[in-house]
Amino acid sequence: MARSGPERTLRLTLAYDGTPFVGWQRQAEGISIQGLVEEALARIEGAPVTVVGAGRTDAGVHSCAQVASVRLTATIELATLARALNAMLPAEIRVTGVDEAPASFHARYSAVSKTYRYQIVNGPIAMPFEWRYAWHVGERLDVGRMGAAAALFEGEHDFSAFCATGSRVKTSVRHVSSSRLSCADAAAFRGCAWGLVAEDLPDTQRLVYEVKASGFLRHMVRAIVGTLVEIGAGRREPASIERAIRSGDRNDAGPTAPACGLWLVGVDY
Amino acid sequence: MARSGPERTLRLTLAYDGTPFVGWQRQAEGISIQGLVEEALARIEGAPVTVVGAGRTDAGVHSCAQVASVRLTATIELATLARALNAMLPAEIRVTGVDEAPASFHARYSAVSKTYRYQIVNGPIAMPFEWRYAWHVGERLDVGRMGAAAALFEGEHDFSAFCATGSRVKTSVRHVSSSRLSCADAAAFRGCAWGLVAEDLPDTQRLVYEVKASGFLRHMVRAIVGTLVEIGAGRREPASIERAIRSGDRNDAGPTAPACGLWLVGVDY
Repeated sequence: MARSGPERTLRLTLAYDGTPFVGWQRQAEGISIQGLVEEALARIEGAPVTVVGAGRTDAGVHSCAQVASVRLTATIELATLARALNAMLPAEIRVTGVDEAPASFHARYSAVSKTYRYQIVNGPIAMPFEWRYAWHVGERLDVGRMGAAAALFEGEHDFSAFCATGSRVKTSVRHVSSSRLSCADAAAFRGCAWGLVAEDLPDTQRLVYEVKASGFLRHMVRAIVGTLVEIGAGRREPASIERAIRSGDRNDAGPTAPACGLWLVGVDY
Repeated sequence: MARSGPERTLRLTLAYDGTPFVGWQRQAEGISIQGLVEEALARIEGAPVTVVGAGRTDAGVHSCAQVASVRLTATIELATLARALNAMLPAEIRVTGVDEAPASFHARYSAVSKTYRYQIVNGPIAMPFEWRYAWHVGERLDVGRMGAAAALFEGEHDFSAFCATGSRVKTSVRHVSSSRLSCADAAAFRGCAWGLVAEDLPDTQRLVYEVKASGFLRHMVRAIVGTLVEIGAGRREPASIERAIRSGDRNDAGPTAPACGLWLVGVDY
């Protein structure tokens, strides 16, 4: 517990493997990333603290660039704070940066856009080193068809059909500034065996979907990806996207893709 | 259980995440990779089978290219066999290839050389996506000094000082045809977030040590790496390698590096 001084607003950058957690947000049961970070900070502050995350990622969703804000009075150097937090947190969560921010900074409300990425291993098998971090789809997907369909999400649309049922939000209109799907080339895919894994699997492609928007509805990226995979497998027409956007009916879109492939990869302020 | 026909010798190629296992080899307690593969094959054969692995990797050691041999009488197409095995095995183990081999083929005795790789994350923190697959060393390592020292292991030497104490082997002389340490460049390191993670950590370098030899003693690669890290940290002189080789005394070499950074990456026949 450090001595206290004037209140500072801090901006934390975090990377985490979402596999073992109930998600970013504190829940009645289970271990959350927010909960662990708040507990670690409370030990330094000597009092309870509230940490706000830019994106409330669901159970199993990963991030290499989550941003969080917190107000602290403890007098501690920022580099020391980062080391102390990493010493207290499990290896699945790392604080990659701590910076001082203006008093008005709020990780969620100050964000102007967020970028999510969804990874798909498309082939007969997924390597033991990638199933935690990507969705394994066995049936061959047509990447060109999926890429063309992905672009249809760009612009301002009502995303009611691409949203967890029962979500309560003021508006389900969101502005998507970029929606792109492509193959990760052999050089870009490496797996955890740095530079080793890509060549080892025949008939396998790695697909990366990236979407940037002012805001996202609950399960929005996963519903988009579930729809794109049905299009890539030839079980759905690209034009069905416009129909689903018009109807706002969840049943008109594809299934929700699994959480393991989803990554929060950027927050812009 | 398939019908039986003439005995065939098969060559399996396997990839596995060693983290949850007691190692390749069956043990009195715990789950081994060999044990799981044998159990899956026995269900197809309808009788117990013995699987021989090229390298008996220890608990926590990974492979993207283990080779195993087995003799089967079950009549089943090789592609079907691969699919059936992957359906029975946990996601941490994948059969990446099944081929017919000459009757004389023995995964261990027929191998002329094996290649191991050891991965090190050198920096203040390790990403949540890489600690299972690399050794995290915090203190800054001198890669040039380590690379020069690594080359001293090449050639035919008695590796008694770089071997688990209590190992019973006929000879501890081994021929190392290549022993190289280098930095994985930013393009080569990507982590499981394909193309994403490398840029996110300042002051971090990824070191890759690769060693190829006709055979390896127990813990040999890990003892070599423990010695190289002491050299890179400046706590040991490169000349101490020659001294340790001469004395054959385990105490003259560095500590055994952790299993998590070690990978069996190639077997030549």
